[in-house]
Amino acid sequence: MSGIPTIAVDEPSDPRIDVFQGLRDKALRQRREAHGGDMAGVFIAEGDIVINRAIAAGYTLHSVLIDARRSQPLPPDFDGVDVFAAGQKVLEHIAGHRSYRGALACFYRKPLQTSRDLLGDTSLSSFVIVEAVNNPTNLGTIMRCAAGLDIDALLLSSDSCDPLSRRCCRVSMGEGFSMPYAWLPDMVEGLTEAKATGIEVLALTPNSDSIDVASLRYRPDDRVALLLGSEGSGLTERALNAATRRVRIPMSRSADSMNVANAAAVAFYALRQARS
Amino acid sequence: MSGIPTIAVDEPSDPRIDVFQGLRDKALRQRREAHGGDMAGVFIAEGDIVINRAIAAGYTLHSVLIDARRSQPLPPDFDGVDVFAAGQKVLEHIAGHRSYRGALACFYRKPLQTSRDLLGDTSLSSFVIVEAVNNPTNLGTIMRCAAGLDIDALLLSSDSCDPLSRRCCRVSMGEGFSMPYAWLPDMVEGLTEAKATGIEVLALTPNSDSIDVASLRYRPDDRVALLLGSEGSGLTERALNAATRRVRIPMSRSADSMNVANAAAVAFYALRQARS
Repeated sequence: MSGIPTIAVDEPSDPRIDVFQGLRDKALRQRREAHGGDMAGVFIAEGDIVINRAIAAGYTLHSVLIDARRSQPLPPDFDGVDVFAAGQKVLEHIAGHRSYRGALACFYRKPLQTSRDLLGDTSLSSFVIVEAVNNPTNLGTIMRCAAGLDIDALLLSSDSCDPLSRRCCRVSMGEGFSMPYAWLPDMVEGLTEAKATGIEVLALTPNSDSIDVASLRYRPDDRVALLLGSEGSGLTERALNAATRRVRIPMSRSADSMNVANAAAVAFYALRQARS
Repeated sequence: MSGIPTIAVDEPSDPRIDVFQGLRDKALRQRREAHGGDMAGVFIAEGDIVINRAIAAGYTLHSVLIDARRSQPLPPDFDGVDVFAAGQKVLEHIAGHRSYRGALACFYRKPLQTSRDLLGDTSLSSFVIVEAVNNPTNLGTIMRCAAGLDIDALLLSSDSCDPLSRRCCRVSMGEGFSMPYAWLPDMVEGLTEAKATGIEVLALTPNSDSIDVASLRYRPDDRVALLLGSEGSGLTERALNAATRRVRIPMSRSADSMNVANAAAVAFYALRQARS
């Protein structure tokens, strides 16, 4: 197991592994990791791939929990960090029957940038803005696709879910770690500010009073934001009205719509094509 | 509850609702609905939207199970069919704490077309072929996106999952019901036959020895099939080698890949653009 020293932990209630407790209790983790909670400032990544991507994106390790029976070598970045080697009782308590993919790592969050920071950064050309996307599977998928399809930054309404929540990190496979993100305390004010900095805000909607995404044309340095609503209810009227234009992905035959994450993937691709 | 008569069922083991038993036991349903099983020939759709899409696609109702407390009117198509109004004990037994979206309907399957039927049908221009896509969430998502983005038919390797499995229908929202599908007993033979009928087979792969999907150009009546492998292991060498060409969706920065269903959505869109 390479030369990195580990600390055996056999008692599920050992306070040294407190940051890994309650992983499967989404509401509890949300409270504990929120501003003012006892875990504000940290997040959990599962599995070597996701952990390595967090390290590559500049996140600092707090501590690591591995299966004491693990035989794969540990990443060299674990050196100097508390690596807890969990016995069977501890693993079952923390991960249950769920796979935890070989290692759990707790990372410190970075200081958050403000939306003003991101909107003002002219090195960022393509944004995705999400309104009330509070399903971590959808947000994680959107982040993974955004990272792969040349989106530079993510802005979230305050009622969207945490991009560093465990499920989000897992679904995005950590592909979103290198993408800067910021919260929009108020959606309409945020969109107004985006437009004031010269960003065109495109609201993605299935409605017919919109233009085909395929008809978009941009120069490489044009600044554009794709605005996405939640699965189910879609964008609010307030957000739709604050956008510059409405765009749609035309659906064939009698088909109604796609899941928000799939629509996002297609729209990111269409935006990339619009610049080429 | 409109004028459609219902049959009260208060006993979970009532044999009249046998087709709805074991819904949450995927392996059991698979065995029972497979060729030779006691439920071969039927499938289950959940919720009014999905049920209505199955009816619109020409599937015939076997029977329906509703919550006895349901107050929404029943679709007129339920007339003449056994509609069982389940009491609380029955609902808990069948659906557990899971939402079953207001109604469960059991439909008769249609006689399956063969891959030869579909490949030979020149009214079908765009195909999706999946190899070992046995995750019903992925297959359901692929079907929903295919239906929305002008794919005409689906071909599946024999180790892919059932397009009419409950989870698939739920994830696809029934959007795939109107899309014809067929099984390929042998993938290489199937691809060889596709090519022999003049279909270009495009293998979607993240590998760099492939062309950018954006560079594709087709006339409206060119016949093309997109070949997709499973999440994780991707396409087999056999399948890759049997394709006409390999295509990729270029990924930005250090991003590795997208989930197969998202990659499929982008590729379907790119194929549609290639014809325009």
